[in-house]
Amino acid sequence: MDTKVALDTIWTLLAAMLVFWMNAGFACVEAGFARQKNCVNILSKNFIVFAVSSLAFYFIGWGLMFGNGSGFMGMEGLFALGGADNSPATGDAYQGAYSSIAWATVPLHAKFFFQLVFAGTAATIVSGAVAERIKYGSFIVFSFVLVALMYPVTGHWIWGGGWLAGAGFWDFAGSTVVHSVGGWAALAGILVLGPRFGKYDENGAIRPIPGHNLSLATLGCFILWLGWFGFNPGSTMAAAVNDMSRIALTTNSAAIAAILTATIASWITMGKPDLGMTLNGCLAGLVAITAPCAYVSIESSLVIGAVAGVLVVLAVTMFDKLKIDDPVGALSVHLVNGVFGTICVGLFAQDQFMPNTTGNGLLFGGGTKLLMAQLTGVAAVAVFTFVGALVVWFILKATLGIRVSLSEEIEGLDIGEHGNMAYPEFNIRKQSYSFAGSRSQEVTR
Amino acid sequence: MDTKVALDTIWTLLAAMLVFWMNAGFACVEAGFARQKNCVNILSKNFIVFAVSSLAFYFIGWGLMFGNGSGFMGMEGLFALGGADNSPATGDAYQGAYSSIAWATVPLHAKFFFQLVFAGTAATIVSGAVAERIKYGSFIVFSFVLVALMYPVTGHWIWGGGWLAGAGFWDFAGSTVVHSVGGWAALAGILVLGPRFGKYDENGAIRPIPGHNLSLATLGCFILWLGWFGFNPGSTMAAAVNDMSRIALTTNSAAIAAILTATIASWITMGKPDLGMTLNGCLAGLVAITAPCAYVSIESSLVIGAVAGVLVVLAVTMFDKLKIDDPVGALSVHLVNGVFGTICVGLFAQDQFMPNTTGNGLLFGGGTKLLMAQLTGVAAVAVFTFVGALVVWFILKATLGIRVSLSEEIEGLDIGEHGNMAYPEFNIRKQSYSFAGSRSQEVTR
Amino acid sequence: MDTKVALDTIWTLLAAMLVFWMNAGFACVEAGFARQKNCVNILSKNFIVFAVSSLAFYFIGWGLMFGNGSGFMGMEGLFALGGADNSPATGDAYQGAYSSIAWATVPLHAKFFFQLVFAGTAATIVSGAVAERIKYGSFIVFSFVLVALMYPVTGHWIWGGGWLAGAGFWDFAGSTVVHSVGGWAALAGILVLGPRFGKYDENGAIRPIPGHNLSLATLGCFILWLGWFGFNPGSTMAAAVNDMSRIALTTNSAAIAAILTATIASWITMGKPDLGMTLNGCLAGLVAITAPCAYVSIESSLVIGAVAGVLVVLAVTMFDKLKIDDPVGALSVHLVNGVFGTICVGLFAQDQFMPNTTGNGLLFGGGTKLLMAQLTGVAAVAVFTFVGALVVWFILKATLGIRVSLSEEIEGLDIGEHGNMAYPEFNIRKQSYSFAGSRSQEVTR
Repeated sequence: MDTKVALDTIWTLLAAMLVFWMNAGFACVEAGFARQKNCVNILSKNFIVFAVSSLAFYFIGWGLMFGNGSGFMGMEGLFALGGADNSPATGDAYQGAYSSIAWATVPLHAKFFFQLVFAGTAATIVSGAVAERIKYGSFIVFSFVLVALMYPVTGHWIWGGGWLAGAGFWDFAGSTVVHSVGGWAALAGILVLGPRFGKYDENGAIRPIPGHNLSLATLGCFILWLGWFGFNPGSTMAAAVNDMSRIALTTNSAAIAAILTATIASWITMGKPDLGMTLNGCLAGLVAITAPCAYVSIESSLVIGAVAGVLVVLAVTMFDKLKIDDPVGALSVHLVNGVFGTICVGLFAQDQFMPNTTGNGLLFGGGTKLLMAQLTGVAAVAVFTFVGALVVWFILKATLGIRVSLSEEIEGLDIGEHGNMAYPEFNIRKQSYSFAGSRSQEVTR
Repeated sequence: MDTKVALDTIWTLLAAMLVFWMNAGFACVEAGFARQKNCVNILSKNFIVFAVSSLAFYFIGWGLMFGNGSGFMGMEGLFALGGADNSPATGDAYQGAYSSIAWATVPLHAKFFFQLVFAGTAATIVSGAVAERIKYGSFIVFSFVLVALMYPVTGHWIWGGGWLAGAGFWDFAGSTVVHSVGGWAALAGILVLGPRFGKYDENGAIRPIPGHNLSLATLGCFILWLGWFGFNPGSTMAAAVNDMSRIALTTNSAAIAAILTATIASWITMGKPDLGMTLNGCLAGLVAITAPCAYVSIESSLVIGAVAGVLVVLAVTMFDKLKIDDPVGALSVHLVNGVFGTICVGLFAQDQFMPNTTGNGLLFGGGTKLLMAQLTGVAAVAVFTFVGALVVWFILKATLGIRVSLSEEIEGLDIGEHGNMAYPEFNIRKQSYSFAGSRSQEVTR
Repeated sequence: MDTKVALDTIWTLLAAMLVFWMNAGFACVEAGFARQKNCVNILSKNFIVFAVSSLAFYFIGWGLMFGNGSGFMGMEGLFALGGADNSPATGDAYQGAYSSIAWATVPLHAKFFFQLVFAGTAATIVSGAVAERIKYGSFIVFSFVLVALMYPVTGHWIWGGGWLAGAGFWDFAGSTVVHSVGGWAALAGILVLGPRFGKYDENGAIRPIPGHNLSLATLGCFILWLGWFGFNPGSTMAAAVNDMSRIALTTNSAAIAAILTATIASWITMGKPDLGMTLNGCLAGLVAITAPCAYVSIESSLVIGAVAGVLVVLAVTMFDKLKIDDPVGALSVHLVNGVFGTICVGLFAQDQFMPNTTGNGLLFGGGTKLLMAQLTGVAAVAVFTFVGALVVWFILKATLGIRVSLSEEIEGLDIGEHGNMAYPEFNIRKQSYSFAGSRSQEVTR
C-alpha cells in the first residue's frame, strides 16, 4: 500500500507540474497571437492569473468543489483546505470532508495541487479571449470569482459527486469541467466587452489582425501539448500503467489528427497552410480528446481529433461572421471543442477501456443513454456558467468598468495599464491598416 | 512484479514526454538559426512533422521496426500496432508479434509512445538542413516516407532484432538509429536541393547568413539538452537505478565538455567565442554520447564530448568548403557526431557498466571486434539511408518539385508557402549583403 | 528496499532535471531584462556557466562539500567523485567518503547529479548581476572558482555535516546555501565592477534601462517557477509522499503571495502594476520559501511570500539609491530574500512538519534559539562568501581585467565579446536616452 501511494504521488505531482507548465504555454500562445502593443498586458495577466486562482481555489474553491455536500455544491471543509481528511486512506477507510475524491490514494496536498492547476487553466482560457481591450484590474477580479465560485460549482456537479455525476455524465480530464467552462466565461466576456477597435468595419468587412510573434505562439503551443500529457494521462491520479499509457496515445493521436486536418482545411479555405490554424488545430484536438481520452480507442481518438481540426477552422470563421471578436481563437478551441469532446464520450466510449464507468457510446452499440447524459451536462454547464459569467461581467462593467479607454486601446494596453513596453528597443512598423476616418466615430462596447 | 511495471512505466512515459519536448527545441533552434523571412515555414514544418511522424509510425513504421520478422525488417503485426502482444509480460512469458522489444516490462502503448518520439526526432533533424528553400508539401511527404519506411528498417537491424544486432553492433540510445539516419537523409536532401540563393558566390566566396533570433536558438538548445535526459537515461525503459543515474551523468558530461571545446575552438579559429558554435557544440556532445552513454565511464564521456565539440566546428567549415549548404549545422551535429559517437562505442565501451553486452572497446583491451561491428553498422546504415533518401528526393523533385521558386526564396517562404509573417509589426533591416548583379543569373538547384 | 531506492531515484533524477531546466529560465530572464546589444553575451554566459560549473563541481567541489572531513570542509574523496561509496546503502550500512549525504537512498551518481544542478544555480545567479559590462573570460574563471572552492565550503558547513549543521542551522533547499551565496558573490562583483555606463548621472539621477524583451523574461520566470518544483519538493531526495506534496504547496503559496504583493507594491509606488516587479516578486517568494519550505505551514508560506514580494520592490529601489547597479534585480531577489527566507526558518518553523529537526521557531513558541542559529549562519556565510568573492574579483581585475572597454560597453558586448548579434535582421531604435556630453567624461569602474 505504501508503495502504491508513493507511485501514485510521484505520478500525480509530476503530472500537476506539467499542467502548471501550461500557464507558460497559454502566456506564449496568447501573447504571440496578439499585437506587440498589448503584449506586456497579456503576459502579465497570464502570469498573475495563476496567483489569483491559487488564492481563490485554496480559500474557497476547493471546498465548494470537493467538500461533502449536496448535488449542487460542497458544504463541508469549505475554508482553506480545512476539513478533516485522513488521506491517503481510501474507500471505507476514508474519513473526512472530501469523500468525492477519496478514490485517489495520494495525500490531500497532492490532490489539491493537482486540482489547483486545473482550476488555473479554466481562468487562463478567458484571458486570451478578452485580450487587447480589458482592464487589468477587472480581469483579475473576474478570475477570482470564476475560480472561487463558478468553476467549483460545476466542477462539483461532475467531479465532486454532484448531480451530473449521478446522472451518468462522464468527463475524464475536463473538456467540460475546465475547457468549456473557460469558454463560456470567455464568451460572456466578449459579448459584454465588444470587439476590438478596428476589427469590424461599419460596412461589414473583417480586418485580420495578425499576431506579433509566431515563434512565441508556436513555442507556446508545444508547451501546451507537453502539458497535456500531464492533463490527460495524469488525471488517473494513480500509476495505472495501462490507462496512463493508453491515454498518452489517445491524447497524442487526437492532437496530430487535428493538426493535419486543420492544416488541410486552412489550405483549402485560405489557399495556404496557415500556421495559426495548424497551432489552433493542435489545441482543438487536445481539448476535444480531454473528456473521452480514457474511454476511447486510438482509432476513435484519431477520428475525434480529425473532426476537431476541421471544427476549429470553421468556428474561427463563424465567430468572425458573428462579430464575436476573439483575438486568439479561444472560443473555437476551448468552447467549441470542449463541447464537441464532451459529446464524443457519448458517441465513441467503449466499456472495455474503463469497465463499469461509461459503458458504450452510441457508435459502439450503447444506445443514446450516455449521449443524452453528456448533452444534459453540456447544457447545464453552459447555462450556469454563461449566465453566471454574464452577471459578473455586467457587475464589473457597472462598477470598476471593464474596458480601457479608446485612446488607451489604440495606444496599447502595455503603456496604459503597466507603463511597460515589451520590446522597447525594436522599431515597430506603422500598422498596415489605417484608422483614418474612424477615429472620431463611436465605437460600440 | 506489478511494482516494477509501475516504476518502469512512470520512468518510460516521463522520459518519452521529455523526448517529445525536443520537438520544441528543434523548432526553436532551427527557427532561430534561420532568417526571419523563413521563420514561419520552419516553425510550421517542425510542428507538423511530429504529426506526420506519428501517423507514419503508428500505421506502418512500428511494425516494420519491432515486428517479428527477418534480419532485414519486421513482418508481423505490421499495421497500426495490431499484432498480438501480452505486454507487460517479458521473457518466456511474452507472446506476441513484437518479441524484439519484449525485454521492456512496460505496456505496449508505453513502448510505442517511447519509440514514437524517437522516430519523430529523426524526421525533424532533416527539417533544419533543408530549410529556407524546400517546398512545404514535399518536406511533409518525405518525412512520412522516412518514418514509415526508412527509419524503421535500419531501426529493425539494430533495435528490432535484425542483422546488425546479431553482428554485435551496439547503439544504446540512437547515435546511429536516430541521429545519423536523420543526418544521411538530410545530406541527400541538401545535395538534391542545392545551396540557398546567395550562399556561395561564383568566385567561391562563402556568405555567412546569420540566424535571426539567437535568444530563440539558445532556448531551443536548452530544451534539447533537457530532452536528452529523457532520450539517454530513458532508453533504459526501466527504473534501473544505477544505469539511469550513471547515464544522466555521462550525458551531461559529454555535453559540457563539448560546449567548452567548441567554444574554445571557435575562439581560436574565429577570434571570438561564437554563440552558435557553443550551442552546436552542446548538441554535438549530446549526439556523440547517445550511442555509448550506457557503456562508458564518466571520464570517457568527457573525452568523447571534448572531441565532439572540436569535430562540430571543423565540420561546419568543411561542409561550407564543399558548398554543402546546411543552414543550421544539422549535418555537423547529427551526421558527423552520430557517426563519431557510434564509433566511440567501439573505442570506449567497458564491459563493467553493462555486463554481457558490448564487452570492452579497443581502448580498454577489447581489441577491434567491437569497433569493426560498429564500423559495419555505420557503413550499412549510411548506404541504405543515403541511397534510399536520394531516391525519394529525386522522385519528389520529378513529381511535386522540392524547391520553391527563386522569387519565393528571395521574398521568403513565410509569405510564399503560408501567407504568414512571423513578426509582422517589426521593422526588418535591409539585408546586409546585396544581390546586385546576381539576381538575373541562373541559380543551380 | 529496492523498491524504495527506485522510487527515490526516479523522484530525485526528475527533480534534478527540473532544476537543470532553471538554467534556461535564468538565461531567458536575464537576457530579457537586459538590452539587446548584450543579449548574446548573457545567453552565452548562462549557457556555458553550467558547463564550467559541472567541471568544477565534478573534479573539486563535490568532495569539498560532501566528503568526510572537518567542520570547515570535506577532506576525503576529493577528486572526481573518487571516494569509496557503497550507496544506496544508508545508515550504519553506509561505508564511504560521503557520509554526510548517506541519508539519501539513491545511487551516488544520482546524488551528485542532484547536487550539481544546485551548484550550477549559485553560479548563474551572479551572471545577471554583473551583466552588460563584464568580460566573458573573467566571468567564466570566477564561476569556476565559485563552484569549485567557495560554494562547496559554505555548503559543507550546512549540508555536508559541517559546523553550522552542528550549530542547529537549517536550510532545507538552499535559500542560503544556493541563493544568498550567489547573491553575496554577485554583490562583490557589482562593487568591484561599478555601475553600467549611463546608469547614474553625476547629479544623482537614476536612468531606468528597460529590458529588451519582456516576453522572454516572462517565459523565463515561468521556467524558473516550474524548476522550483524540483528545487524544493525534490530536496527530499526521496519519494516522501507527505513532505513532497506539502512542499509543493508551500512553494507555490509563497510564490503566488509574493506575485500579488509585489504587483500591488509596484502599483502603489510606481502608479501602475509593473510587469518586471510582478516577475521578480514571484522569484523573491520562491527564494524566500526555499529554506523554510519543509518546516512551515501553508499559511506561514503565504505570509513569507507576501513579505518577500514587498521586500523585493523596496530592495530594488534601495540598491539603486546606493548606486549598486544590478541590471536584473538579482540582489533583490536572491540575496535579500535568501537572507530573509533563512531567517524565516527561525520565525515560522513548526516541529510538527519535520519532527526532530528544526523544532519550533520564535512565532510558534520555540524561543530565539533557532533564530539565533539562523542569524549566525546568515552572517557566517555572508562574511566568507562576500570577502572571498571580493578577493577573487580583485585578483581577476588585476590580472585578466574584468570590465570591457567603454567603447565596447557602449557598442554592446555581443559584437565586442562574441562577434554576434542576437537579432541581426531587426531594426533597433535609437536609444531613448542620450549620452550627449557624457561620452568624453571618465566613467568610474
